[in-house]
Amino acid sequence: MQLTDAQRFDWLRLIRTERVGPRTFRGLINRFGSAAAALDALPDLTQRTGKPIVPASKAQIERELAAAARLGVRYLAMGEAEYPKSLHATDTAPPLIALRGEAGALLKPSVALVGSRNASTAGLAFTERLATGLAEAGLVVVSGLARGIDARAHRASLKGGTVAVIAGGHDKIYPDSHKGLVDDILEAGGALVAEMPMGWVPRGRDFPRRNRIISGLSLGTVVVEAARRSGSLITARFALEQGREVFAVPGSPLDPRAEGTNDLIRQGATLVAEVEHVLTVIEPLISGGGSIPDGVAERAEAEAPDYWDEIDLDGGGPRPVVAALHEEPAPFLEAPVAESGDAGARLLAALSPAPVGTDALARATGLPVRVVHSLLLELELDGRIERHGSGTVSLLSRA
Amino acid sequence: MQLTDAQRFDWLRLIRTERVGPRTFRGLINRFGSAAAALDALPDLTQRTGKPIVPASKAQIERELAAAARLGVRYLAMGEAEYPKSLHATDTAPPLIALRGEAGALLKPSVALVGSRNASTAGLAFTERLATGLAEAGLVVVSGLARGIDARAHRASLKGGTVAVIAGGHDKIYPDSHKGLVDDILEAGGALVAEMPMGWVPRGRDFPRRNRIISGLSLGTVVVEAARRSGSLITARFALEQGREVFAVPGSPLDPRAEGTNDLIRQGATLVAEVEHVLTVIEPLISGGGSIPDGVAERAEAEAPDYWDEIDLDGGGPRPVVAALHEEPAPFLEAPVAESGDAGARLLAALSPAPVGTDALARATGLPVRVVHSLLLELELDGRIERHGSGTVSLLSRA
Repeated sequence: MQLTDAQRFDWLRLIRTERVGPRTFRGLINRFGSAAAALDALPDLTQRTGKPIVPASKAQIERELAAAARLGVRYLAMGEAEYPKSLHATDTAPPLIALRGEAGALLKPSVALVGSRNASTAGLAFTERLATGLAEAGLVVVSGLARGIDARAHRASLKGGTVAVIAGGHDKIYPDSHKGLVDDILEAGGALVAEMPMGWVPRGRDFPRRNRIISGLSLGTVVVEAARRSGSLITARFALEQGREVFAVPGSPLDPRAEGTNDLIRQGATLVAEVEHVLTVIEPLISGGGSIPDGVAERAEAEAPDYWDEIDLDGGGPRPVVAALHEEPAPFLEAPVAESGDAGARLLAALSPAPVGTDALARATGLPVRVVHSLLLELELDGRIERHGSGTVSLLSRA
Repeated sequence: MQLTDAQRFDWLRLIRTERVGPRTFRGLINRFGSAAAALDALPDLTQRTGKPIVPASKAQIERELAAAARLGVRYLAMGEAEYPKSLHATDTAPPLIALRGEAGALLKPSVALVGSRNASTAGLAFTERLATGLAEAGLVVVSGLARGIDARAHRASLKGGTVAVIAGGHDKIYPDSHKGLVDDILEAGGALVAEMPMGWVPRGRDFPRRNRIISGLSLGTVVVEAARRSGSLITARFALEQGREVFAVPGSPLDPRAEGTNDLIRQGATLVAEVEHVLTVIEPLISGGGSIPDGVAERAEAEAPDYWDEIDLDGGGPRPVVAALHEEPAPFLEAPVAESGDAGARLLAALSPAPVGTDALARATGLPVRVVHSLLLELELDGRIERHGSGTVSLLSRA
């Protein structure tokens, strides 16, 4: 598949539309056959909700494309040859990714290397050893361009064509001090990947959401140092959900930066004390083309949910991703996890054949109204609910 | 069962006899019904071997008993109420253990805590935390009285009645500087256990052999810090063979003192980052009386061999215990491991219904002649071989 420029424009316009995230995007394309048709249908489809969805303006998309062109950023669409199959295989793959640098770097087999920003000297040294070894073995190192472990991982694997997934737009590199590292990555034949629009300044909640792309691009994720409740553990959790390998580097129980990684090992992650411990697991997964092996997505479906129940990364407290997304919903990307997990189940449980208002559903489920709206749109696209007057909805029987 | 003083004297005399170790002791008792009868029979039984076995002299045993009495040391015999059932359940349990201190400390559920002599500050601090927590949970901490981790483990668990298993005689405490620690252990209601006779100065090969008693007394063994090929890993291996739990404390891959423990975790040992990680596994094993749970010995039989093949503690090189025992056989205790493992199998494979000499068997198996003699004695007690003239033996058919 290869989109025309006009199709790519419509795809970008649809994914940049308020309350349309990766799942809803897929639902709309499946229902209306194209992004253009979905854009046409959206206002009518959502007119009965309290706040009907208005597509992003063409002017906004034109501005984004112009800004992208100035940095040499291009957009790869899910299903196109250059869009990484490993990411495509995930539930919440971005319909479009904005790429700066070499698309080839996205097509080689890769391993994510993530860890704390506040890394120890030993953690940084071991990261360097690992990243160098992975690159020498022909694997691309994927990370998040953060301070500490991430930056060291990129720098030590420049020769292998390292990939940085950033949380904001390509013209808003964070942290500022890593602009030189970005130049080095690009010069060495690596790449930067962004889901968010040009001009987007990354905020706290963008980082965990970004982490699903780091893990989704990779055959496995290695967590080098991580305190409990840290972002790297969210990446590990996404890797599990996506049916990918999870590795962790152990540390002294007296070092808070090892608490998260030691927990992961207790929960079944592969202990990594040398690069061979990663290669032994990853190399058999690399089939001919070096892309995501057949069956990974199926394994994700089959294995992740059970495993998930065992791995309580946040110690029984609120799950950081879901909590962050519920409390502070993003302005135009709905919550990718909230949609699929507990929230969706809670909403379904609160629905019945008797029409009920969205405010009542929000109270019954404890979900913010805008999350309820997003979930209802998904359910509607799935043919699970029916809209009635005054913004009420009812569950359709599945007969 | 309770031995009379005369029986205890004969047991001690039999186990102190050259080339009679725990396995041969059991075989002789089973064949002759008592230690006294076995002592009478030994010279005739072994007259056809190159070097017939002469029982230890009564004078030697009287001297040992006198020395023991001066330190308040008493001998507990396998099968007596005070002899720990957990140790009894092992293949090479010492027929007699020399006890100094409270026998009660041996009857409570216990966990071994072992590690490197050259411990890090963090390793010592974590040992203290673990030992304190285990003692507070009502578990006895067993260790080896060595410098470093062992000493810290004993000291932090004094209140719980800690047990030190020493490699020499009770009057030859090693290291010398730990005599004060011994006094503190005894004063706090703990105990010291020795297999070797009074007056025995421990040598290098006595320590790994002693380690099977540390693991055998305990429901599980926690290795805190251990370089590759260290004695603590031998204790862990014995624990595996005995069907006991194995725990290891992780550390940075850049710390050589964590190499052994990280290896153990990769091989299936439970990662310990807090005392609860031990208690969660151990507490369900403690049945009413707090002794070794039913089924542990059976589990050892059923599970150890397979597990063993996976866990290559010495990286493919010679196995340290076996190698040490073969190269430098002890003067009066035959090799406890060599008897049971590969050596026994190799010797059996080398035997046939055609009579063959012990020298030829030694050449064929690569075993030292004295080990061949010990193994042949065992096989003879089992009725597996027949002696012929000129020190030759042949395999009996098992029909």
